[in-house]
Amino acid sequence: MPMPSPASKAAGPEIEELIALLAKLPGLGPRSARRAALHLVKKREQLLLPLARAMEEAGAKIAICKECGNIDTRQPCAICADSSRDASLICVVEEIGDLWALERAGIVRSRYHVLGGTLSPLDGRGPDDISIAKLVERAHAPGITEVILALNATVEGQSTAHYLASELEHLSIKITRLARGVPIGGELDYLDEGTLAAAIKLRQPV
Amino acid sequence: MPMPSPASKAAGPEIEELIALLAKLPGLGPRSARRAALHLVKKREQLLLPLARAMEEAGAKIAICKECGNIDTRQPCAICADSSRDASLICVVEEIGDLWALERAGIVRSRYHVLGGTLSPLDGRGPDDISIAKLVERAHAPGITEVILALNATVEGQSTAHYLASELEHLSIKITRLARGVPIGGELDYLDEGTLAAAIKLRQPV
Repeated sequence: MPMPSPASKAAGPEIEELIALLAKLPGLGPRSARRAALHLVKKREQLLLPLARAMEEAGAKIAICKECGNIDTRQPCAICADSSRDASLICVVEEIGDLWALERAGIVRSRYHVLGGTLSPLDGRGPDDISIAKLVERAHAPGITEVILALNATVEGQSTAHYLASELEHLSIKITRLARGVPIGGELDYLDEGTLAAAIKLRQPV
Repeated sequence: MPMPSPASKAAGPEIEELIALLAKLPGLGPRSARRAALHLVKKREQLLLPLARAMEEAGAKIAICKECGNIDTRQPCAICADSSRDASLICVVEEIGDLWALERAGIVRSRYHVLGGTLSPLDGRGPDDISIAKLVERAHAPGITEVILALNATVEGQSTAHYLASELEHLSIKITRLARGVPIGGELDYLDEGTLAAAIKLRQPV
């Protein structure tokens, strides 16, 4: 259970400040932030100072690509600037983390477009709150033949994909989405009914 | 399952470096380090730059107290320098985190002594590898009447406490250890037999 964190008064305000900031990182609560701060102070030369420098540098250099929404030290980003990539394809993702995941898989050799979220009427996020206008503009460019909607298979992701498809359907380009089915290594007994139903419906010849 | 982390090549070497360093923090694996790095870059003004500054400052100012082993920006640390504390008592702990925990409880108004670990013959940690000589020296000082061995109730903690007691027994001072029993909020059904046995053996009149 996370504690309401009365941070360690025993070590002075600098440590308290460090703990308070570390606790704002996703995945760290007040207790693990204390552990992390202590670890950092103990490993001053090997970790604390290099991490401080890496953050300074990232903060000074990294910007959001005006073209696709990726982050990089270059403008446009390395992916948008890479002329060996297939310029006829735009792969649309919700977040930069999704772009990274696809790049790790190494399977998409196209440009990307980061929406920066999904439509969510309940949370008050409409079409103007995510990067849809820019996507439509990019999809209009000559030479574009396909837009892959690589959004999450969640309710928000899919309703956003639906909206994007309707915004793009007047263009004479292909609009595609990721395949549905059993994930690699997936055990049927642990999969939800929706995935199983999709996997049966979209079954393929061996 | 933690992945072997091929970090995000999509965002350049600065981000890769940041992710690699964040992944060394306790509690963060490669996957959560990526999430943390992304979060930091997105919250540049509110989190990334303040955290970098807090780390710089901590790295520049914080040192280990030569007297007790606590960390602080002062030498000796605020606790050793606090003349309102009971100077006749030394509370011995394994790690700085334990000192912080006791300070949060606000119950010990003595000085501390941080061993920096436990004796562990299997891991090759002997009496010279933790701060025992300094403790013996401090315990010899005039005016010391009691040493509290506030070590963890683990095998290593208790064998270290045993060793320390034997090193200090020739001094005419009290050597004490923390009480054993049912923790506050503890449910008997979930406690181990050792704790229950101690709680029965050391039972107290109501």
